[in-house]
Amino acid sequence: MGVLDSHVSFDELRELISTTLQQAGAARWVADILAANCAGCERDGALSHGVFRVAGYVKSLESGQTDGAAVPVLTNVGPSFLRVDAANGFAQPALVLAADTVDTMLDETGLAVVAVRDSHHFSALWPDIERFAERGFVALTMVVGGTRVVRPRGAVEPVFGTNPLAFATPVEGAPPIVMDFATSAMSHGDLQLARNAGRQVSLEVGTGVGGRDTTDPGEILAERGLLPFGGHKGSALSLMVEVLAGALTGGAFSFEADASASSAGPSPRTGQLVIVIDPRRGANEVFASRVAALANMLRGAGVSRLPADQRYQARARVLQDGIPVTPAISALFV
Amino acid sequence: MGVLDSHVSFDELRELISTTLQQAGAARWVADILAANCAGCERDGALSHGVFRVAGYVKSLESGQTDGAAVPVLTNVGPSFLRVDAANGFAQPALVLAADTVDTMLDETGLAVVAVRDSHHFSALWPDIERFAERGFVALTMVVGGTRVVRPRGAVEPVFGTNPLAFATPVEGAPPIVMDFATSAMSHGDLQLARNAGRQVSLEVGTGVGGRDTTDPGEILAERGLLPFGGHKGSALSLMVEVLAGALTGGAFSFEADASASSAGPSPRTGQLVIVIDPRRGANEVFASRVAALANMLRGAGVSRLPADQRYQARARVLQDGIPVTPAISALFV
Repeated sequence: MGVLDSHVSFDELRELISTTLQQAGAARWVADILAANCAGCERDGALSHGVFRVAGYVKSLESGQTDGAAVPVLTNVGPSFLRVDAANGFAQPALVLAADTVDTMLDETGLAVVAVRDSHHFSALWPDIERFAERGFVALTMVVGGTRVVRPRGAVEPVFGTNPLAFATPVEGAPPIVMDFATSAMSHGDLQLARNAGRQVSLEVGTGVGGRDTTDPGEILAERGLLPFGGHKGSALSLMVEVLAGALTGGAFSFEADASASSAGPSPRTGQLVIVIDPRRGANEVFASRVAALANMLRGAGVSRLPADQRYQARARVLQDGIPVTPAISALFV
Repeated sequence: MGVLDSHVSFDELRELISTTLQQAGAARWVADILAANCAGCERDGALSHGVFRVAGYVKSLESGQTDGAAVPVLTNVGPSFLRVDAANGFAQPALVLAADTVDTMLDETGLAVVAVRDSHHFSALWPDIERFAERGFVALTMVVGGTRVVRPRGAVEPVFGTNPLAFATPVEGAPPIVMDFATSAMSHGDLQLARNAGRQVSLEVGTGVGGRDTTDPGEILAERGLLPFGGHKGSALSLMVEVLAGALTGGAFSFEADASASSAGPSPRTGQLVIVIDPRRGANEVFASRVAALANMLRGAGVSRLPADQRYQARARVLQDGIPVTPAISALFV
């Protein structure tokens, strides 16, 4: 890429990110997996998990907060139940390393539960499960956010992380439906992007100094005053994520994370749970066409956008034009 | 119970409900299971799924919409994966009939996924999973609401049911945390109770004639204008429930239910998914004490009420005083 080019190819960006992460101390196989993930987020317009995050990865690697050369340890604890100790490494390479075992479980039992502990997850969740839905499986995953920035209903201090969850399902004749959202009113990345861009946020996103309502994302970040989405129901879901992706996996809770570590990126030594089910088990071969009927019903009722539609549209544009070069991408090429 | 008594015992209420359901055509074993469930909701103060629902059960049985003598068919489709055809019966007896198989799966594999189809679920979800958490398991369940009363973001007509989901976890030294909520802004039962009591609801609950905002629960019910909770995230969760509890189980979607059937009660021939995991698998014996630490953190941060607290408080009062007799209970004794 020349410095004046307005677009960069996916492969070029991926390689550049991988090189950057290797220079910061990541093993090549780890750097390649993280770079594909990060460039994929940028490609799909999910900028809050794209190149914007590279500085956090680098800081986390260079500070030693995360081990970029960690070798995950897999333990089968049941015919469909895999535990993964990410050994203070990133969650994505741990999941890639587990993929063969998971595939065998799915082949043999129609089910796989993967409980990852002692891991760091700085990215979106949809890349972790989209590939299952592309092969006919449904998949549900959740991650402990790892920095206590969210105040559940009634709390006078933050307890939860942004605790995202994601779900993917095949759709016959179309790419998978993949939803992925923070159980906080806004993701931490989007809140940072809003602050950096000088944008205000809506009143239900969080509270500021003294617990007062504010639309200033900088104040919400400083006060760690993010609220869960959807009142007590979102708060309950965030609690569920701490239990399933934290306690069940054996990872840390958000409130246990070292606050000083959060500057290097979220999710220190927490966990991730992935549940994959083969809906075709039991001769339910019509599953994907049933989901397609539901999707058609929704579009017919006037729902203009289903989860992941925007990402697929961005992905198609990139295939045509390449990835638009942002200041964050330019900075990588320096 | 004398007609002037202010309280009734749990056992007395349960037997009365069972007799009523048997008179409406339910087999005794089915009636006993439904009655224990219904009386349990009343006992725990969950009135929208208590005696208030008996008329709906009776109507559903007498109209033949639901088969009160159905014999569910179980099919093991994997070492941890059970399919249940409820044969147009109620979901609760199907789950009770499946309990031994599920226990064996949990013993042998640490996991159980139960996919129930062709079932009717008129009650709360927490009674289905509380008992797993009491024995040390985490459990997640969801049900397709079965009447199209919820309009996802952007829809000009209702597509989803109220599509509840519930999650239960053990807590060392305390009763389980069990959350259970509709993915709609309010449950259909609570909306009916608000209408019957002449109460207004808040503006984000639903829309009325012409899609306009309204606080009138009667108008929301008439227009089938309920909204999902929490905007597009709640809407996405409701979609997930249709996919997992509908398409995956082989049950009907909410939008496929016969609208005329809805007067007899929700959830015609839909499905329910239950996922049970043994968090102790893999030598994670500290699980329940970790959840207790999280609960303590939340209470210490000022969260006065965790999910299920209210039910346990009501349950304790009933143990002391019996169940308060409401007009709905009085009517049963006529």
